Amino acid sequence: MRCGRAGANQFVPGVDPVLIDDLVAANRILANEKVLDGFGHVSVRDPRNPNRYLISRSVAPALVTANDILEADLDSNLIDAKGRSSYKERFIHGEIYKVRPDVHAIIHSHSPTLVPFSVTKYPLKPILHNAAFLGAGPPVFEIRNAGGATNLLVETAPLGKAIAQTLGKAQIVLMRGHGATVVGPNVRLATFWAIYAEVNARQLAQAIAIGGPITFIEGEEQKLTHENMATAYERPWQMWKRDALQQK
Amino acid sequence: MRCGRAGANQFVPGVDPVLIDDLVAANRILANEKVLDGFGHVSVRDPRNPNRYLISRSVAPALVTANDILEADLDSNLIDAKGRSSYKERFIHGEIYKVRPDVHAIIHSHSPTLVPFSVTKYPLKPILHNAAFLGAGPPVFEIRNAGGATNLLVETAPLGKAIAQTLGKAQIVLMRGHGATVVGPNVRLATFWAIYAEVNARQLAQAIAIGGPITFIEGEEQKLTHENMATAYERPWQMWKRDALQQK
Amino acid sequence: MRCGRAGANQFVPGVDPVLIDDLVAANRILANEKVLDGFGHVSVRDPRNPNRYLISRSVAPALVTANDILEADLDSNLIDAKGRSSYKERFIHGEIYKVRPDVHAIIHSHSPTLVPFSVTKYPLKPILHNAAFLGAGPPVFEIRNAGGATNLLVETAPLGKAIAQTLGKAQIVLMRGHGATVVGPNVRLATFWAIYAEVNARQLAQAIAIGGPITFIEGEEQKLTHENMATAYERPWQMWKRDALQQK
Amino acid sequence: MRCGRAGANQFVPGVDPVLIDDLVAANRILANEKVLDGFGHVSVRDPRNPNRYLISRSVAPALVTANDILEADLDSNLIDAKGRSSYKERFIHGEIYKVRPDVHAIIHSHSPTLVPFSVTKYPLKPILHNAAFLGAGPPVFEIRNAGGATNLLVETAPLGKAIAQTLGKAQIVLMRGHGATVVGPNVRLATFWAIYAEVNARQLAQAIAIGGPITFIEGEEQKLTHENMATAYERPWQMWKRDALQQK
Repeated sequence: MRCGRAGANQFVPGVDPVLIDDLVAANRILANEKVLDGFGHVSVRDPRNPNRYLISRSVAPALVTANDILEADLDSNLIDAKGRSSYKERFIHGEIYKVRPDVHAIIHSHSPTLVPFSVTKYPLKPILHNAAFLGAGPPVFEIRNAGGATNLLVETAPLGKAIAQTLGKAQIVLMRGHGATVVGPNVRLATFWAIYAEVNARQLAQAIAIGGPITFIEGEEQKLTHENMATAYERPWQMWKRDALQQK
Repeated sequence: MRCGRAGANQFVPGVDPVLIDDLVAANRILANEKVLDGFGHVSVRDPRNPNRYLISRSVAPALVTANDILEADLDSNLIDAKGRSSYKERFIHGEIYKVRPDVHAIIHSHSPTLVPFSVTKYPLKPILHNAAFLGAGPPVFEIRNAGGATNLLVETAPLGKAIAQTLGKAQIVLMRGHGATVVGPNVRLATFWAIYAEVNARQLAQAIAIGGPITFIEGEEQKLTHENMATAYERPWQMWKRDALQQK
Repeated sequence: MRCGRAGANQFVPGVDPVLIDDLVAANRILANEKVLDGFGHVSVRDPRNPNRYLISRSVAPALVTANDILEADLDSNLIDAKGRSSYKERFIHGEIYKVRPDVHAIIHSHSPTLVPFSVTKYPLKPILHNAAFLGAGPPVFEIRNAGGATNLLVETAPLGKAIAQTLGKAQIVLMRGHGATVVGPNVRLATFWAIYAEVNARQLAQAIAIGGPITFIEGEEQKLTHENMATAYERPWQMWKRDALQQK
Repeated sequence: MRCGRAGANQFVPGVDPVLIDDLVAANRILANEKVLDGFGHVSVRDPRNPNRYLISRSVAPALVTANDILEADLDSNLIDAKGRSSYKERFIHGEIYKVRPDVHAIIHSHSPTLVPFSVTKYPLKPILHNAAFLGAGPPVFEIRNAGGATNLLVETAPLGKAIAQTLGKAQIVLMRGHGATVVGPNVRLATFWAIYAEVNARQLAQAIAIGGPITFIEGEEQKLTHENMATAYERPWQMWKRDALQQK
């Protein structure tokens, strides 16, 4: 557990160390659970200033430590950068924080089984209760509609605005040929949703292969299940954190 | 092997420490074998009092230790709770123990490959001899029939009674959109069945994808195989326990 | 590497310790590579006496050590048993050694992806050069033909003779609803074949799902590839052994 | 991290130790990420002499250390061999270096999910942006066209020339019934491509099973994404290296 502890962060003084610790843990957890590969990023809104957010410098999520955390404004300019750089796609974070005041944490991933659903037409609807937040299936961001022929990265403010628009009021948006972005009221719940989106995608792909009809979680049942599951993240969080920080 | 040893349990004094050790080991084994995720729970009937059962407080199975084990009556009221709480779905356990005197251990899981079979119509019949206990395929608990639109959790006594009724005389009941519950005469055999239900589900999904016809274990063959396998759990238990307790 | 070393074996004095070490390593390797689960067994013919073979007592392959190795004659009677017992299915070994003088090592497994191929009609032909030994696809042992309704175990001499007959001159026989048995001229090559049978099964299942036509390794090409691969086991053996013995 | 450090290499004196370290790390990374099994090999062109390349002696990639690195000329004769031997298929490397001056690193693998695509007709086109280098799908080397009935190994200069010809100007060539060869301007980028070819194959197989139509990365979009991704390997390299060298 030697690498995962927050300790003091020298670049964002004054932030609650528990929040830094959670942000580091979320990076490590999502890497350990194979939702994040060597890319992907996690941010939290600064509780002291809703017009700023915290995000790591450009390093693989599995390697993030407290001292890698930087701060950015909602135009995604780094504060006191002093030569340090962060992820080029951080506009995903800034532009969503601008239009979704309920969002306090954002995860951008190449979640492996979300990619196949991003390039096909089968809606990623929930079959597992833990994934009820998927509702009627997430919107899919087709970057060609927003930017024509691109390198598929959301590395400008207009593309960030476009993905925020596609996301709308949802908790997740699939990104065609790329992955997904999950948003939540706090980083522990966003982590829970990001993990169970991947789990549900694997199980739905299996159900499709077994053969339909498939019973989805729908209607009032979906609403009740989603509401209840939104309070259930603490128990697995403790396990995921133990697994992620003990491992390396 | 530092975390898995039973030692003294302070909350359920007088219980055979071997039973506590088995209950803790079953939690760790089923988490290590990926049958249990951060949720799920395992119980054993109290050998001193058939109207009580032992179950962990609300903690992820991978983290359960001897001192987490509490006792409940068959209405699932905790004994000497003193502010501690257990799983909200413990009614699954109490209500099954009420009507199945042969059952001395119960496992509730989100076993990953049982979920796709719970939402499709393909019967989960055995193709692997170790899973012969699946018989003609497990009953499926459709909570809509018992409770209409719910949050999918079995968190009341009536829902517990309903799942006990769907289970009937079987050793496993699939729960639509949720997972499964496995029951057995002791916790080592229930663990064996829970693991091989998942293995058989994975292998059957592959057989379906390869293409039929599929030869199932059926009739007198199923009966003979099931009877024999019900005595075969000790050998893998020793390996699973070593793997689970050595790992963390 | 503390558990895997052969050291002295007290029950089979005088056997070359390198052979004991290889037999223990094969058990551990096949468990570590997930070809063997908590069941399965590995044997070698005694180089000092072709009418005897060495096999572990009844313990999970992952836990086998040098002192677990016992000796049996070809009727599968244990020599100097003194109350120790071995696997009930050891007749697979004895009866094959009787009729196949070229065979000096036998592996019986529940290899996970061989089970789906054992219950369907798609022939497990080679698509990967390492698995060229699969030839035109292995014979499949249908125990119903040999024993009617059974518990699926090969626990008598007549059933052992029947599987030896189905095996014929092949290097592998699938066992319906059960797994497979692989035979070879030495335990390192048999281990190589057992691992690549599983790998080829996984890859063939994927190729079937991608959609045909599929190009198999056939004819003269199969013969040349098989002959060459039969000399290629040393390089992966060293890696598998390091992985298996370092792990626990 | 005890085994992975380069230190001094006694057989290829004078080579930049950072290059040796990268070559060893690439071997370990590709084994750890399951792109390489016990076979496969990685080479780099000698920066001091473009007519020579560095490659390990005949050992499993997971076990390669700095002192295993040997040197060969482009006819794949070992320099100062002194009885040491390297991989029989090293002609893949020498013959490609001859005709592709832009190539400074080559990886030959049995990448598990590339094999099914090598024996079917479905083109391995990119659906994940990280794999945009796959372009319109890699050429497939059918050794029957070059050598008739063979043992499937590229163990002669003419077969090496034939695979170099099939590769053409691409970055990857699938090898029917065998695996793939990936080439790049440096070993870190070639490693990145080899890993994401496998990831894309897994995801494309899932997309095919979910059911089409599938949106591929094509045209100008493919070109832009490929160009950008070719600069993105440093971040995951650091993680992969940490994971691979810490593990053993």
